[in-house]
Amino acid sequence: MVSQSGTVSQSGGPAVVALGGGHGLYASLSALRRVTSRLSAVVTVADDGGSSGRLRRELGVLPPGDLRMALAALCGDDEWGQTWRDVVQHRFRSQGELHDHAVGNLLIVALWELLGGDSGDSGDSGDSGDSGDSGGEGPVPGSTVAGLDWVGRLLGAQGRVLPMASVPLDIVAEVRGADPSRPDEVTRVRGQVACAKTPGTVLSVSLVPGDPPACPEALAAVKDADWVVFGPGSWFTSVLPHLQVPELARALMATDARRVVALNLAPQPGETDDFSPQTHLEVLQAHAPDLRVDVVLADRGVVDDPVALDKAVRDLGGRLELADVAADDGSPRHDPARLAQAFVKIFRD
Amino acid sequence: MVSQSGTVSQSGGPAVVALGGGHGLYASLSALRRVTSRLSAVVTVADDGGSSGRLRRELGVLPPGDLRMALAALCGDDEWGQTWRDVVQHRFRSQGELHDHAVGNLLIVALWELLGGDSGDSGDSGDSGDSGDSGGEGPVPGSTVAGLDWVGRLLGAQGRVLPMASVPLDIVAEVRGADPSRPDEVTRVRGQVACAKTPGTVLSVSLVPGDPPACPEALAAVKDADWVVFGPGSWFTSVLPHLQVPELARALMATDARRVVALNLAPQPGETDDFSPQTHLEVLQAHAPDLRVDVVLADRGVVDDPVALDKAVRDLGGRLELADVAADDGSPRHDPARLAQAFVKIFRD
Repeated sequence: MVSQSGTVSQSGGPAVVALGGGHGLYASLSALRRVTSRLSAVVTVADDGGSSGRLRRELGVLPPGDLRMALAALCGDDEWGQTWRDVVQHRFRSQGELHDHAVGNLLIVALWELLGGDSGDSGDSGDSGDSGDSGGEGPVPGSTVAGLDWVGRLLGAQGRVLPMASVPLDIVAEVRGADPSRPDEVTRVRGQVACAKTPGTVLSVSLVPGDPPACPEALAAVKDADWVVFGPGSWFTSVLPHLQVPELARALMATDARRVVALNLAPQPGETDDFSPQTHLEVLQAHAPDLRVDVVLADRGVVDDPVALDKAVRDLGGRLELADVAADDGSPRHDPARLAQAFVKIFRD
Repeated sequence: MVSQSGTVSQSGGPAVVALGGGHGLYASLSALRRVTSRLSAVVTVADDGGSSGRLRRELGVLPPGDLRMALAALCGDDEWGQTWRDVVQHRFRSQGELHDHAVGNLLIVALWELLGGDSGDSGDSGDSGDSGDSGGEGPVPGSTVAGLDWVGRLLGAQGRVLPMASVPLDIVAEVRGADPSRPDEVTRVRGQVACAKTPGTVLSVSLVPGDPPACPEALAAVKDADWVVFGPGSWFTSVLPHLQVPELARALMATDARRVVALNLAPQPGETDDFSPQTHLEVLQAHAPDLRVDVVLADRGVVDDPVALDKAVRDLGGRLELADVAADDGSPRHDPARLAQAFVKIFRD
């Protein structure tokens, strides 16, 4: 199925599930869409900041931001897909109430409300403000995926975007030195924004609620996958949370799919300062001791000690794949084409 | 081109321009879309209430609500068109900042900002709130129509929706008895909401600014039309404002198109209490003395004095067409199929 350029035809490629959120998942999807058309993203729903956090609090819905970004990464290559991608990614800028809301977040939430039966005032026509029911019920589970599928159709998305859980989640981190005046004290920090901003060292993360319902379609995608890809991305807030959803973690252990861990190009300021590639793997193993890893992908240029990393990977039961996947511009971003080539090689070997 | 059911094939029918706003334009478009596929709506942009008014004030854009509603009236008949119509018509309900905003209003404004180059934070990905530039510039003129065309494509709209002017407008009404304690005093009331709600009697309306730039595409549509349809709709705030845009009024006088006035089924509470059909025509003539009218369409059941109305119509140079166009449910709404049949007869005669 793989062409000379390392990409696949529309209907080809292995079944791949990419787990993550935010910029990291955007990077893996931007690469994987070149490698396979049988692609599902399983996305964290624990954000509590920005536009997503406001929507979550105001309307009682899943935070849509990471889902929106994943959909944008999968948009069609034509003018239609590119235009609607730009629309969903567009943010209002003002001194007022709409400031910073991403249009795609509003669109996703509207579809959830509409398909979930909380149809507000659909079909009304005037602009006179009549008072309606408050939100706060959250989407009916089945409507969550249907709503994302509709936005996917709008974008001509090459793949499917699914939430990792059917209810909004909070990340809770064990942090050493969250209070700088007590550098050795370990305390709990709640909320994705707080975890990302803590001046202390994050040791581990868990979720509230602790056993949320997983998204059935995500479980099915993991079960049927040929490959599951963890990372890149914010380790504690985008990559590890999936393993803290017990149903999803069990599916990730049980699947016959092979598992790839794509390491970051640089430590995440705050979250993973001073983390070596090996430390990332140690933290992963600590959060999911039974997870077998088949391949660890790292950029050749950012691995200081390939021997030590190779040993750490082999301790996990996998093999190390070193490749040039960083962008040329000096940013700690993956180059989509290079990352795609690396995935092609991994999936073929 | 007209089939047995009185409708036309996809590419057929006369070139029709429907002028108005709000519920009235929704009704005429819902009928006209069954009669012709060469349909343009020219829509008032003077609303200052509800979601539209808030967007206008917060982001400095044209009030999108009447434009959104016209687009919704033209949506495709398939699941795609119906779903996206429901999405654009959907309103958020909450105790918070999004309450009452119609999703389509936000979508239209986003396209204006995007295509106008005020692209905000498009392509950004995280949800962290960075401060951006304020809005307030309004859309670049060319992007206004392009943005509406994109939403039209989303909806599979059968026709085109255009604003009557390229800048936001205010309606100013001469009102007798706006202050109930001085019932004979004539004062000026500014703003569509204030005009619609005044306890006094509206005598005439004008616009601020007084000579706004018309939308070039709207002028071209009027010039090339076979038929131009005024009303139904709120007489002073949706039907007459078009004649107060001087460029558009001149185009409406100069066009070779024949002109139909579709009268309302009931007086508008507040705006046109106690107005007979003849009064509606008198007010129209007062606002556009040189406008020739070819046909006046009125519902047979609501005309108390057909002889007087017939005389008033002949005084305008036109002929009266009486038909059963009201819905059966007792509401003062037009039945789309019956209204379509009436237009078919008018366009054929």
